[in-house]
Amino acid sequence: MASEIINPQSELTATGLDPAFALHRGGKMAVRSTVPVRDADDLSLAYTPGVARVCGAIAEKPELVHDYTWKSQVVAVITDGSAVLGLGDIGPEASLPVMEGKAILFKQFAGVDAVPIALDCRDTDDIVETIARLAPSFGGINLEDISAPRCFEIERKLQERVDIPVFHDDQHGTAVVTLAALRNAARLTGRQLGELRAVISGAGAAGAAIAKILVGAGIGDVALCDRKGIVSRDRDDLTDVKRELAGLTNSAGLSGPLETALDGADVFIGVSGGTVPEAAVAKMAPEAFIFAMANPDPEIHPEIASRYASVVATGRSDYPNQINNVLAFPGIFSGALQVRASRITEGMKLAAAEALAAVVADELSPSCVIPSPFDERVAPAVAAAVAQCARDEGVARR
Amino acid sequence: MASEIINPQSELTATGLDPAFALHRGGKMAVRSTVPVRDADDLSLAYTPGVARVCGAIAEKPELVHDYTWKSQVVAVITDGSAVLGLGDIGPEASLPVMEGKAILFKQFAGVDAVPIALDCRDTDDIVETIARLAPSFGGINLEDISAPRCFEIERKLQERVDIPVFHDDQHGTAVVTLAALRNAARLTGRQLGELRAVISGAGAAGAAIAKILVGAGIGDVALCDRKGIVSRDRDDLTDVKRELAGLTNSAGLSGPLETALDGADVFIGVSGGTVPEAAVAKMAPEAFIFAMANPDPEIHPEIASRYASVVATGRSDYPNQINNVLAFPGIFSGALQVRASRITEGMKLAAAEALAAVVADELSPSCVIPSPFDERVAPAVAAAVAQCARDEGVARR
Repeated sequence: MASEIINPQSELTATGLDPAFALHRGGKMAVRSTVPVRDADDLSLAYTPGVARVCGAIAEKPELVHDYTWKSQVVAVITDGSAVLGLGDIGPEASLPVMEGKAILFKQFAGVDAVPIALDCRDTDDIVETIARLAPSFGGINLEDISAPRCFEIERKLQERVDIPVFHDDQHGTAVVTLAALRNAARLTGRQLGELRAVISGAGAAGAAIAKILVGAGIGDVALCDRKGIVSRDRDDLTDVKRELAGLTNSAGLSGPLETALDGADVFIGVSGGTVPEAAVAKMAPEAFIFAMANPDPEIHPEIASRYASVVATGRSDYPNQINNVLAFPGIFSGALQVRASRITEGMKLAAAEALAAVVADELSPSCVIPSPFDERVAPAVAAAVAQCARDEGVARR
Repeated sequence: MASEIINPQSELTATGLDPAFALHRGGKMAVRSTVPVRDADDLSLAYTPGVARVCGAIAEKPELVHDYTWKSQVVAVITDGSAVLGLGDIGPEASLPVMEGKAILFKQFAGVDAVPIALDCRDTDDIVETIARLAPSFGGINLEDISAPRCFEIERKLQERVDIPVFHDDQHGTAVVTLAALRNAARLTGRQLGELRAVISGAGAAGAAIAKILVGAGIGDVALCDRKGIVSRDRDDLTDVKRELAGLTNSAGLSGPLETALDGADVFIGVSGGTVPEAAVAKMAPEAFIFAMANPDPEIHPEIASRYASVVATGRSDYPNQINNVLAFPGIFSGALQVRASRITEGMKLAAAEALAAVVADELSPSCVIPSPFDERVAPAVAAAVAQCARDEGVARR
C-alpha cells in the first residue's frame, strides 16, 4: 500500500481542500452516559454511596464485573504505531486517527464500544506486559498496525497472559474475509476448496494469517511467497513464523520465484504491493481467482486480471468484491463478547468466514462473492456463528 | 469511610432490592461516533484512504494530533484498585464501577470525554511506566483511588515523564473544594484566611493535599494530624511526604494528639474517619468552621458540630454544604484541556478554588458556603479560571 503523506508545509491548504481534514477536526468519537445523572438521587446510585455496593459485590464475586460494568461490551483498539496503513512507522500520536476510525467502525457496524489506544512503547515484551495490565478494563483486545514479525509474538504471548480475546486484525480480519470470498468464488464456479492451489504474495501479517486459515479450511495447496520467492523448507533465511508456515504450506515442494508458484495456480492472493507481470498471470489455470488486495494499487490491475480470471477482487471500494476487514472484526468481537469468550480460536475464525460467505446467497455472481460493507446482515450473522463456535469449543463463559 | 460490602451470597437478592444494581447492569457508558459512516464515501474519509492523509500530516507535524483526534478532549481515569472509596484494596475489576462513574461525571458536568482504566499492576514504578506508555492517546490523566503514600510518588514521577496534566483527584479535587468552602466561610464571618488556624485530621491523600493548598492559600497556620497525632518536625516515624509537610505546616510547633491541636483552633477539617469527642470540639475557638467529611459517618456529627461552629460542612448530600469533588475535577480538566496545558500547577488549583467559591455570590449563608453539584455555573467558571491561570503561568500550549 502506497503512502499518501501530504506536504507538511501545506497542512492549512490541505485542511481547506481535503474533506478528510474537515471531517477529522476535533476527532471522530465521544463517550456518553447511558444512565441518568440529573440530581442527587441519581448521583447516589451511579456514584457514591451506591456504587460502593456494586464494587463490593464484584470484589466478592469477580465474574459480576461482566454484569455491572461496560467491560464485556468494550474492546481496546491498540497499536504501537509501527506499521500504520501504508505509512509505515509513524509512531503513536500519528496513528491515533486510524485507531479512532477503527473504534467508530466497531460501534457503527456491530454496536461494540471501543477505545483507541496508541502506545509509546516498542519492545515486544513491554507491549505484552503493558496490555496485560490494561486487560481488566476491557472485554477484548484488537491489535492493530503492529509491524511483522513482532505482531505474531505479541499476539501469542499476550493471549497466553490474559483471559479475554486478543485478535490482530491485520492478520485475522483480512484472512477471514479472504476465505469468505474464496468460498463463494469456489461455489460460483462449482469447485471444491480441496481442488484449489493458491498462491499468496506477501508473507507479512496478512499473508501469514491467510496462509494459515486457507490450510485450516482445507485448500488443496498453498504457496506463500515473500520478496525472495516461495517460502519453502529448504530456505535458510526464514523467521520463526515463516519456518512454521513452510511446514504447513507448499506440499508441492516448490521453490523459486512467485512466477514459478503462479504457473498453473487457481488462486492469486496479493497482500504485498508491487506488480505481478501479465505474463505470469497468463500462466495461471483457466478460470482463476485473482484477489489483488494492495491499496491503492492492486498487484494486478483489475482490467488485466479480468482477462484471465473468473473472479476478481481488490481492496478498493471502487471495484466489485472489496475485501474489507470491516466485514469481519465487528461481528467477530460482537460474537466473542456476547458469550464472554476467553479467546478467538481458529475454529471461530473459520466459522466467521463461513457465515460471512453465506450472507451472499442468491446474489452470488462474479461481481458479488462478498457482501457490501454496508450489508446489515453481515455483523449479526458473523456474531452468531462466532458465538456458537465459542460455545462448541468450550471457550465461552456463558 | 465505612465499607458497605454486601453479602456475596445475596447478590441476586441485592440485585432485586437495590436500585444501584439495577442501574449498573450493562455498565454506565458507551462510545459514539461524532462523524457519519453511512456509505462508502463516508468510510473513505473517516477510514482508509482518507485517514492516511491525516495520519501523514500528524507524523510530519505532531501538534496536529490535538486538532484531528479526540486526544485533547479525553481524560483517562486510572486506578490500580488499591484504595477504592471506603472499601480499600479491592483490585482492578471491582474498582471499575467507580472509574466508570467518574467518567460519566466528567461528561455530564463538563462535557469532557473520559475512559475508565483499572490496572492490574501494583509496583509504583510499573504503574508510572504503564501510564506513561498510554499518554499519547489522552489529553490528561486523572489518577483515582490509589493508596497513600504510593499515590504521591506515582503522581510526581508520572508528571515528570509526560507532557499532559496528571491529577490525583482524591488529593487535589478534595483540596480545591475544601479551600473554596473555607474561603466562603471566612467571607461570611468577616475573617481573613491569614487569621485562621486550621486542624486537619487525616494525613492520607486528601489530608496531605488539603494541607498544601491551605498553606498555598495563606491560611495562618495548619496542624496536620495522623493517627499518632500532630505531624511535627520532632517525630521520627514520618514518611517522606509527611516529613515534607511537617516542614510546611505547624508553624506553632505543636506536638501531641489531635485534641491539643483543636484547642483554640478556628477550623476542623476531617478526612480520616473515626470520631472526635465533643469535649475536644468544645475547646475550639468561637464561631469555628467544622468540615467533617468522612462518609458515611462524619467525624463530628453535624448536630453536635452546629453547637460550636458557625459553618458546618460534610461529605454527605443529605446535609447542607456538601464537599463534593465533582465541583472541581470536571471544570479543572476542562480548563486544562481547552488550553492544552502540560500540567496542573498549584496556581491553577488555587484559581479553581477561588472561582468555585465565587460562584456562591449573594446566596452566601451558613448553609451555603459551597455551590450545589448541580449548579450549572460551576464547571464553566472553574474551567475559565484554570485556563487563564495556565496561560498566565506559561503551561498552556494555546
